[in-house]
Amino acid sequence: MQTPQDIRPEPAAPGDSGSRPLLITMHPSDNVAIVANDGGLAAGTLIEGTRPLVLRERVPQGHKVCLVAIAAGQPVRRYNVTIGFALQDIEAGRWVHERLLRMPDARGLDNLPIANAARAELPPLTGRTFEGYRNPDGSVGTRNILAITQTVQCVAGVTEFAVRRIKEELLPRYPHVDDVVALEHGYGCGVAIDAPEAIIPIRTLRHLSLNPNFGGEVMVVSLGCEKLQPERLLPEGSIPIRDDRQAEPLDVVCLQDEAHVGFMDMVQSIMRQAKMHLERLNARRRETVPASELVVGVQCGGSDAFSGVTANPAVGHCADLLVRAGATVMFSETTEVRDGIDQLTARAATPEVAQAMIREMAWYDAYLQRGSVDRSANTTPGNKKGGLSNIVEKAMGSIIKSGTAPISGVLAPGEKLSQRGLIYAATPASDFICGTLQLAAGMNLHIFTTGRGTPYGLAACPVVKVATRSDLARRWHDLMDINAGRIADGELSIEALGQEMFDYLLDVASGRKKTWAEQWKLHNALVLFNPAPIT
Amino acid sequence: MQTPQDIRPEPAAPGDSGSRPLLITMHPSDNVAIVANDGGLAAGTLIEGTRPLVLRERVPQGHKVCLVAIAAGQPVRRYNVTIGFALQDIEAGRWVHERLLRMPDARGLDNLPIANAARAELPPLTGRTFEGYRNPDGSVGTRNILAITQTVQCVAGVTEFAVRRIKEELLPRYPHVDDVVALEHGYGCGVAIDAPEAIIPIRTLRHLSLNPNFGGEVMVVSLGCEKLQPERLLPEGSIPIRDDRQAEPLDVVCLQDEAHVGFMDMVQSIMRQAKMHLERLNARRRETVPASELVVGVQCGGSDAFSGVTANPAVGHCADLLVRAGATVMFSETTEVRDGIDQLTARAATPEVAQAMIREMAWYDAYLQRGSVDRSANTTPGNKKGGLSNIVEKAMGSIIKSGTAPISGVLAPGEKLSQRGLIYAATPASDFICGTLQLAAGMNLHIFTTGRGTPYGLAACPVVKVATRSDLARRWHDLMDINAGRIADGELSIEALGQEMFDYLLDVASGRKKTWAEQWKLHNALVLFNPAPIT
Repeated sequence: MQTPQDIRPEPAAPGDSGSRPLLITMHPSDNVAIVANDGGLAAGTLIEGTRPLVLRERVPQGHKVCLVAIAAGQPVRRYNVTIGFALQDIEAGRWVHERLLRMPDARGLDNLPIANAARAELPPLTGRTFEGYRNPDGSVGTRNILAITQTVQCVAGVTEFAVRRIKEELLPRYPHVDDVVALEHGYGCGVAIDAPEAIIPIRTLRHLSLNPNFGGEVMVVSLGCEKLQPERLLPEGSIPIRDDRQAEPLDVVCLQDEAHVGFMDMVQSIMRQAKMHLERLNARRRETVPASELVVGVQCGGSDAFSGVTANPAVGHCADLLVRAGATVMFSETTEVRDGIDQLTARAATPEVAQAMIREMAWYDAYLQRGSVDRSANTTPGNKKGGLSNIVEKAMGSIIKSGTAPISGVLAPGEKLSQRGLIYAATPASDFICGTLQLAAGMNLHIFTTGRGTPYGLAACPVVKVATRSDLARRWHDLMDINAGRIADGELSIEALGQEMFDYLLDVASGRKKTWAEQWKLHNALVLFNPAPIT
Repeated sequence: MQTPQDIRPEPAAPGDSGSRPLLITMHPSDNVAIVANDGGLAAGTLIEGTRPLVLRERVPQGHKVCLVAIAAGQPVRRYNVTIGFALQDIEAGRWVHERLLRMPDARGLDNLPIANAARAELPPLTGRTFEGYRNPDGSVGTRNILAITQTVQCVAGVTEFAVRRIKEELLPRYPHVDDVVALEHGYGCGVAIDAPEAIIPIRTLRHLSLNPNFGGEVMVVSLGCEKLQPERLLPEGSIPIRDDRQAEPLDVVCLQDEAHVGFMDMVQSIMRQAKMHLERLNARRRETVPASELVVGVQCGGSDAFSGVTANPAVGHCADLLVRAGATVMFSETTEVRDGIDQLTARAATPEVAQAMIREMAWYDAYLQRGSVDRSANTTPGNKKGGLSNIVEKAMGSIIKSGTAPISGVLAPGEKLSQRGLIYAATPASDFICGTLQLAAGMNLHIFTTGRGTPYGLAACPVVKVATRSDLARRWHDLMDINAGRIADGELSIEALGQEMFDYLLDVASGRKKTWAEQWKLHNALVLFNPAPIT
């Protein structure tokens, strides 16, 4: 993990808002640094430090300042990586925005370093536990939720109606059940279900049903005539057998079943089946389990230049603590780490893991090319406004969330975890699609960092939201769970915040603390990744 | 329109359930007919009529009976069209299921008949009216709904929270407003927004906001940093100017706006803006308008062999009445009419319309090929169980919904209507995606036929559901609005039911009647068609 090397708090300069001018440099060989101060820094601001500097123009917060003169054509470096080439001579003290940069060419997938990075020392971390729900398949839930699987969008209206009644009429009788969640989606029919890539949405839905927070209880609402038949969604053997009984037939409420006379009959069927599962879920109790049972998905969205400086490095440190405790950490977002592929293949635990990463990236390159997309599609307008000039700069700030552990495994989109440690779960960068795929992989806890701010949440799993800046944390005081802006403010080190985050995760996992998204019941839709055609 | 030529009610045969054996033939030159009787017909059943026949085996309801011996390799004909070739000799009285048929090759897009079909006589139908809401742009709503447009999935949780409060706290004060609908979707960020085909989801969302049932009131909830910025979604000039004032700036609640301090502030902002629009909507009243203001989307889903025999021909007759009254009728479902392309190009009003249809079909052929899909992906398991052997047979039953009028226009996916008459709106066949695209085109009323049964509904527009069989209509008595099974039962002619449907549409459009989907507030999600990549 690269850490800020050069946080230089200085006395306030004339014309500034009163706070001390603060620049953050990620690596000693960088020739740009970013402005930490709320509201940016005014032209003429003097920054003394080791390399005294006068700002030639106003530079907004999170944006880059040129530290030493850069000649046209020369590399602009941040994170000790070339994030672009100067399109003209840039004087020290100038604002280095994306219009002054030419993006470097995409890194090819040949001749990459393979599993040869120096291994960080990560001594085991023992004795940390949380209170979780142990499942029949050995996994552990952090919440005790009844999920209602749906084979097809057609049944969504009826299921939603039934879920509303279940929440009103049944749930109050089952105090140990946290929630009832309809796994609604837009798939299941009107799709090319035999296309090669249909495997992705199908296995995603299958594995979503088996998320550890659903306690091994699987109930399905099916229409009857859909392409994605229940037996195709959950073939025999896909649901782990419970300790205390024989394999049960798949529990399916089929709306077209001839026994249903009218809509209310369908609703009653769903409620009756839900009751059976609620009873079993309600009998469960939390028990003390090792921290190694955590399956944490990390993600960032609405990123700014602080993402890669405060929140993401702290998540990286927390990821190291989790891996040291034997837990599982997934990082993702293929298009946003693609430009750091050489770092990732070098960090692979084995050559096979490196090859699997290359395979996923190559698949994605081809997928984007088929749709005539170039990688300039990322970054977003908000990213740019927040100071991120291009995808190379964004990638460096994104990868840092993965910490320093060797990468032990790779999941293709929609696949389910079968090992622990640090895993690259190859998903698109879209927040809600990445979240959906991480849930399918088996995530029981989610960390989400944001600089611009997003009210992101998931119904199936607690989402811990981390603000990259104190200003955001203050304004969104009832949406942001952790303020990583304290790092830029000089209050806390990255390591201290990573440790705080780790402790907080154990509290949330145990149900001792609730995230803001849970508090408000704010959540996003499940959105599937379906690269196959619609018919 | 082809109509059943040979409905032959006969006395009950021994071994049958007691009802008279009933076969339906679509055209005199067909060599198969379908069994109309609930529960099918037993082996040994004697069918007298003009061509006496004894069933050699049990044939389920909706499935095909061989009327005259068909030699191996010879065509099997229904709707006066070859729906397949016999894979072996088939004796008269045998069940002709899909395992006995080889599907015909796909119809190429070269050398099609162009706008040369004999024109049906469709004398104008005058004097029919309904009570609708006249909009500033001249369109007419059948409902008076506040729609909340969203630029991106990120804001869905907050918007849903606000909509719940608007419904509880504000809506009761505005009795002339029917509903508040959040236009939730999975698009807006994490997508290749500059890919050539991104135009489809973007214009779909734009045009959804402008649906006639939303009264010209557009309010947008935006996150702030998303790729699909409000100005890109609804550029200047895309919202028609209201009669009574100057062009107003786009009404956007931006969650990242620095004025928002905390979640409740965001909710309050949305509620405050909603209130302004609710007041304007609440001041509107229905007025008498000609039936030509109807914009009816027709669709079928969960089809069986009766779809093309009862419900769809009746919809076809109703479509003719609508076109005669000067209204707009859209039919869609590209993959399910593809095999009838020669009928469609022949029926085009002009060569340009025929070429536009060919262009849309060619685009879709290429799209499916890119995803390695062949057309056997359709039909569904439920279609087959219902008696539809393959997509050719299904297509004939689907096209019949369009009636007999010349086809006056073609819309690409997500485009908005700009003319009246019979329009081919080229959408995928997926029920919810087709419905979403027809809403974007400007639909203010929807007819949906189903044989297997589906509880389909849309929040933005009344959906009239038509059962193809009396058995379904009886069982789903509180979900199906019209029973077209009465045609197979010999109670009603296709024309009489088409007329009944037309009258019913005017009642529903006027708010005098509510559909079952409205009664239960059952609706499906908006699902976008996005052929461009996710990033």
